[in-house]
Order: sequence, then C-alpha cells, then structure tokens
Amino acid sequence: MSKSPFQLQEFLDESTLAVNQALDRFLPPARTAPRTIHESMRYSLFAGGKRMRPALCLAAAAACGGDAETAMPLACAVECIHTYSLIHDDLPAMDDDDYRRGKLTNHKVYGEGIAVLAGDALLTQAFEIAAKCQSQPRYSRAQVILEIARASGSLQLIAGQVADLEAEGKKVTEKQLRYIHERKTSALLCCAVRLGGMSANCTSRQLGALTDFGYHVGLAFQVIDDILDVTQTSEKLGKTAGKDTKALKATYPSILGLEKSRGIAERLTTKAFDALKVFKGRALALEGLAQFLLKRDR
Amino acid sequence: MSKSPFQLQEFLDESTLAVNQALDRFLPPARTAPRTIHESMRYSLFAGGKRMRPALCLAAAAACGGDAETAMPLACAVECIHTYSLIHDDLPAMDDDDYRRGKLTNHKVYGEGIAVLAGDALLTQAFEIAAKCQSQPRYSRAQVILEIARASGSLQLIAGQVADLEAEGKKVTEKQLRYIHERKTSALLCCAVRLGGMSANCTSRQLGALTDFGYHVGLAFQVIDDILDVTQTSEKLGKTAGKDTKALKATYPSILGLEKSRGIAERLTTKAFDALKVFKGRALALEGLAQFLLKRDR
Repeated sequence: MSKSPFQLQEFLDESTLAVNQALDRFLPPARTAPRTIHESMRYSLFAGGKRMRPALCLAAAAACGGDAETAMPLACAVECIHTYSLIHDDLPAMDDDDYRRGKLTNHKVYGEGIAVLAGDALLTQAFEIAAKCQSQPRYSRAQVILEIARASGSLQLIAGQVADLEAEGKKVTEKQLRYIHERKTSALLCCAVRLGGMSANCTSRQLGALTDFGYHVGLAFQVIDDILDVTQTSEKLGKTAGKDTKALKATYPSILGLEKSRGIAERLTTKAFDALKVFKGRALALEGLAQFLLKRDR
Repeated sequence: MSKSPFQLQEFLDESTLAVNQALDRFLPPARTAPRTIHESMRYSLFAGGKRMRPALCLAAAAACGGDAETAMPLACAVECIHTYSLIHDDLPAMDDDDYRRGKLTNHKVYGEGIAVLAGDALLTQAFEIAAKCQSQPRYSRAQVILEIARASGSLQLIAGQVADLEAEGKKVTEKQLRYIHERKTSALLCCAVRLGGMSANCTSRQLGALTDFGYHVGLAFQVIDDILDVTQTSEKLGKTAGKDTKALKATYPSILGLEKSRGIAERLTTKAFDALKVFKGRALALEGLAQFLLKRDR
C-alpha cells in the first residue's frame, strides 16, 4: 500500500477548530464580570488569526509521536501570548495601527486602557493555561513554563519589540534587522515548536532539531511578512499595507531589495527542512506548514 | 529565659535588603541589551517601594516554620507583578499619574511605549522567577505558578483595575468599592502570604488561616491608602495626594466618611489578627506587619 499524501488543508482546518474550541474552554466566558475585559480578550483572540503557532505546536507533537490533546494547553498558551503581543504592538504608543486581520484593533474598539489590560490578562492567562498542562518524564510543568517565560521575556519577544521601536526612522543594518526578527517572531514560533515536542516527551536530539526548525521557519515567516507588506494590497492583508514603508520601518526588502529578500526566505526554509531530516518522514505536518508559510500570499 | 520582643523594624530592614539583593540577581543587569527595557524595569522595581508584599511572604513562611531563602523567589515574583501593575496603572490611558514614590513614573521617564513593555516584561519575569522556586511535598511549582496567575489575572488583579477604570466619575456603592479593593489590593497581598506558606510546605489549615489573614490585611491596607490620600500631603506620600478626590474616584472616605472608614480598617485588622490564632504566637512577623500597616502614616 502506498502512503496517502499529507493533506495540509485538512490538518490546518482540524487544528484551527480544535484550538478555537480549547481557547474558548480555557478563557472565562465573555459574560464573566468584568465583562469589558473578557469581551476585549476574546475580541482579539477570536479575530480570525491563522493559528499558525498552535498548528506548529501540534505538528511538532505529532512528529515526536505525541497527541494533540496533550499539546493543546501549550498551543493555546502560545496563542494567548501572540495575541497579547499584537494588542500591545498596535497601541498608539507603539505601532499605532487601526486595523488587524481586517478588523479594528483592540484599542480602537475598547479604548487604550482596556487594550493594555486585555493584553496583560492574555499574558497572565497563558501562564495559567500552561500551568495546567501534563508533565512528562523528561519535562516538568515548571520547565515548560520557564520555556514560555523566556521566549516572551525581555531578552526575546519583548527585546524584539523594543529594538523595533528604537529602530524606527533610523538606518538599520541587516544584522540589526535580523536581531529584531529573531526576537519578535522567531522566538515565539520556535517556542511553540519546542513545546509541542516537550509535550510528547521528545528526546534531546528531537528537541534540538525542532529548535533549529523553529528558528529558521520563524525567521523565514517574518521575512515573508516584510515582503508581503510591500507587494500586497491592504484589502488582501486585512491590515494597512505599505505601513512599514510609511513608518520608515526597516524591513528586509527596504534594506536588501525584494529579490534578495525572497532568496533569503527560501534559504531559511531549506534550512528548516534540513532540520526535519531527523524525523525520517514522520514530520509531515511540520513540512507541510513550512511550505505553506513560504508560499502564502497574505 | 523570657522571649525577646519581636523587632519589626529589624525584620523589615533585613527582608528589604534581602529582597532587593534577590531581585537584583533575578533580573537581567541594566546593561543587558536592549538596555532601555532593562533600565526601565529596574527604574520602577528599585524606586523605593516598601516591599510589603515580599515581607508578608517571608513572614508567612516563617510562621509555618519555613526559611526566607526558599520563599524568596516567590516573594520576588509577587513584587515584580506589583511593580508591573503600578507601571501600567500610572499610564495616561489609566490613572495618568506623573509621580510615584516621589519619583517620576515610568512613562514620564521612558515614554509610554517602553513603559507598557517594561510592565509586560516584569509580569513575564515574575513567572520566570517563580518557575525556578523549589517544589514542596504538598505544593508543586506548577501549583504555585497557578496561584500567581490566578491572583494576577482577569478575575482578580486585572478585574480590580478594570472595575476601577469603569467606576471613575460614577456613583459607586460600598459593595462595588469593596469589589475593586478586594481585587486591586487584597488578591495579590493574599497571594503573597499564601505563597510564603506554600514555600514552607504548610498544612491546609495553615493555608486557610493565611488566606483569611491576607484577605483582611489586604483590604485594610487599601482602606488606609484611601484615608491617607485625603489626610496627607503629596510630599509625605511621595505621590500626588488628593488625587482620588480630584479624579472623582470612589474611596472609602468619599462614600462613608473618614471616621467610619477608620473603623472599618480597624475591624479588618482585628479579623486579620484573629486568623493568626492558629499559629499560637509563632506568627510574630505577620502580627507585627499587620500592626505596621494599620499604624502607617504614608
């Protein structure tokens, strides 16, 4: 019997549905007092995100022989952190964005005060959810929480946002831009992938491979985001296109040009694929996702 | 031999020094890139806070036969959360305060964007520190982290801030005000005390007593804060006095008058003392702190 081809769309549809249901279970209902904060948290969390980080987490678990149910709390924790970072990044004091995923940003709907608090609450919620995950023989719950805290902290995710803020309107080198992208995007993507492996009690060799994969996919993902900002319309992106250019924000295309940037994205993806060789064909979902991330047009 | 009397000032001096040293160890050095964020985190964390929550945490550990070293990561985690909440509360979109503890607030020094991120980073740092605590036979590290996440989340600390925001300029009942104070202040104080007990592997009876104590001391603490805002000068408080009145913020004195508020604070403290009877005189530091919190004039 020949192996049936991997159906990425099916995997994505299933994982998105399962993640949405789990997030709905993990979060206080919208009517819970104070309603404003729970409505606001849910507004951004259910604003049509692609759920790429949870999908990567679940795919990594599958590659290591784990199941989606065990990986789910960690997949959801990462999505809460991703959403919090978007809410805070969109604030007037940061990127000052009015639209995100085709909808008004959190502070445009709920006001700045509630938007700050909704971000805070989602960040806190992430740790509450993660603290409920199953421990594994090789990885305690505390280790998993440490992993999330480090990827989201002042040396990674937040460092990226700070460096991004400080680079605005300045001349930025390729090295500095890579520093920003590694932290703003790669760190949490890589964390999602590692957490998936940890939930499946992966070996240290597998964890190393997942780290390598996550780092390169994350960086490729962000380079493509930069490219799409230049080449696509606002309507298609669901957010203000050309925004980076207007804000004089350094991007791969603005520093290196479009062609070179596309080449970099492709090379990063090749490196990501190479990292998966350890799994000897059992990382189909991760491979499919990496291909999807490189070929996407929005 | 007669028992030597408990020296509160000595306990406070020692615990403040130890907490400051531990916080300094737990946080990335100020020169760590990106410098802005680490300087900003440290600016607010070392702005002369009274370290009441860490002191309560260490005192609770002592009451249960534990030591300061084991309780320290949790004491520091709570202080990081307290500081993050102050930075975000002071933002223009929230309470819009220029001074805190006699110094310019974080956003007045570093700008709003960095202030939001410094708060985010301290919140994240709290979980990183807590994840490194020692587990106890009765309490895993994950349980302790869950405790912190719940006390800081959208049903407690953040709920209080939301309700406070929404009450501004409106007529507030005593019941609503208690809701706000329970969440804005009591929740984290109570958490600090419970964490101290948990670090000492306390019994469930002791944990119940600490919860009762923490709740009442926390509420008393906030009622007194309300009273001091009316009765003290800005210079003495190190922040803008009369601010609550100007912002038309509901406080115990504004709803019930000064005398009745003082009576409430005293009754709450009595209840707190009653909760400590379980410890049969071994909770000297907790008793001393409760007395100190009620008698303070700033």
